[in-house]
Amino acid sequence: MPTPSIDLAIVGSIGIDTIETPTEKHEEILGGSVSYACAAASFFTHTGMVGVVGTDFPQAFRDTWNNMNIDLEGLQTVDGKTFRWGGVYHENMDNRDTLFTDLGVFETFSPELPEDYKEAPYLFLGNIHPALQLHVLEQVRDPKFILIDTMDLWINIHKENLTKVIGKCHMLTLNESEAQLFTGEHTLNQAAKKLLQLGPEYVLIKKGGNGSMLFTKDDIFLLHAYPLDTFKDPTGAGDTFAGGLMGALAASGKTDKEAIRQAMVHGSVVASFGVEEFSLDRLVQIDRDEIEIRISEFKEMSRI
Amino acid sequence: MPTPSIDLAIVGSIGIDTIETPTEKHEEILGGSVSYACAAASFFTHTGMVGVVGTDFPQAFRDTWNNMNIDLEGLQTVDGKTFRWGGVYHENMDNRDTLFTDLGVFETFSPELPEDYKEAPYLFLGNIHPALQLHVLEQVRDPKFILIDTMDLWINIHKENLTKVIGKCHMLTLNESEAQLFTGEHTLNQAAKKLLQLGPEYVLIKKGGNGSMLFTKDDIFLLHAYPLDTFKDPTGAGDTFAGGLMGALAASGKTDKEAIRQAMVHGSVVASFGVEEFSLDRLVQIDRDEIEIRISEFKEMSRI
Repeated sequence: MPTPSIDLAIVGSIGIDTIETPTEKHEEILGGSVSYACAAASFFTHTGMVGVVGTDFPQAFRDTWNNMNIDLEGLQTVDGKTFRWGGVYHENMDNRDTLFTDLGVFETFSPELPEDYKEAPYLFLGNIHPALQLHVLEQVRDPKFILIDTMDLWINIHKENLTKVIGKCHMLTLNESEAQLFTGEHTLNQAAKKLLQLGPEYVLIKKGGNGSMLFTKDDIFLLHAYPLDTFKDPTGAGDTFAGGLMGALAASGKTDKEAIRQAMVHGSVVASFGVEEFSLDRLVQIDRDEIEIRISEFKEMSRI
Repeated sequence: MPTPSIDLAIVGSIGIDTIETPTEKHEEILGGSVSYACAAASFFTHTGMVGVVGTDFPQAFRDTWNNMNIDLEGLQTVDGKTFRWGGVYHENMDNRDTLFTDLGVFETFSPELPEDYKEAPYLFLGNIHPALQLHVLEQVRDPKFILIDTMDLWINIHKENLTKVIGKCHMLTLNESEAQLFTGEHTLNQAAKKLLQLGPEYVLIKKGGNGSMLFTKDDIFLLHAYPLDTFKDPTGAGDTFAGGLMGALAASGKTDKEAIRQAMVHGSVVASFGVEEFSLDRLVQIDRDEIEIRISEFKEMSRI
């Protein structure tokens, strides 16, 4: 069996986004769950991207990933147009409306892992169709730790498949409203109890600017979001958080609760940088030292 | 000058509430900001209540306060009806509509402090008209620490008076939307910066089930809410939190940042018990030991 060239494989969407906030509009910028997640993970570990783009995909975006040392062996380039998404945020930035979705080559995406990615000890199944997530799991050779993300669409229309794939993963992450939608429970404690019964050892509920909660059968870990003076674009924040978490966890080589707590802190801080600008604009500016400085501040703020 | 018989004086409203949640309706139950706040503080320190009730006020409610060792020397009983309030919570329990408000004797309330309350080292000005809060400040003799609470109504119609009274206090507390309303700033960091310029050394922003944030000119403290399996009624949670905080702070005899962090933890945990039942029904069941056990769990959940 080949030695894996990467520590962490991440599967997900790649998009060219058009995003409007109450104060700014940015057109044709780099987006997609796997782009945000790989960028965040790349601060901590050698990360491979599994996704698809069309022949129209700009070289400049590819250069951005290359400059972050993201491994692109798992990136497919196929005839056609790259997935495009447009969204507009409401005044409070908490909610958004989708303006358009052009799936392009993403419509027929079938994630195929390069041989050495199949040996990667850590795997993050970003938010794609549950059948595709299952297809990835059929290719890998017993990773140490698998994180799965999803969204309301799959909970609504493919709950059975989704439940099946969740049962094969170590950790499930979803946001507050998705956890409530999936379980019908209002309190997150009750929702998490039901989700843990599906099989994963960990359930990680994201609450945006209000932080996140990690549930196991025995305990709960509460994490804040780093409080920002200004933030510009929340798009991809959850993917950045989860990607940073998996990158830091892969770098630790561990999968226990303490390691996951620390990995969450790392992911949360990387996400706090990410939302300070659109796309990966802020993430390409920072380095590991700046992340560590903010982690220290964050720990002091959270100390009781 | 007389030695104060109490360590903490709390001024606020006393109401007889009718509350509907998606699952339950309770009529004519004990409520009001000073009732919740004094009950919470009474676990930690000798607390005096300043408020008004009508001659219709049930003896059973008075007994509830007496059983918690709340000092009632500052409680006025006047001819007329006690303030009544009715509200209904929406499905998510985050929002509520007021069904009716009968001010009764609260309409002409003028808070008068008994002589020995004027010497109390800690003072909590609960949410009442800013002119009445100023009237209380004119009576006290240089307390060590004053906390002031308010609401959207006073921000909208009496901002000038409110600003004046805030400038005379050590700590201001309000909830997230009130902080945004007061300052016109969206991020809490920016809102808190503006509020600190009004004079208080501390600004405490309450985020309900998402915890709270303490701002000073130099730093931020982030506190979660204790995660509950079930909660029944959020009415008075903010008053319970602030009352517990002030009770614990008064018990410590301190006013520094570290003492306030610990006091916030105490207040938060008391509030987490409070919302498990309507009115003071849960608070009358618990003791200091149960609070300390939950504080230990809470600290472990929050450790990073």
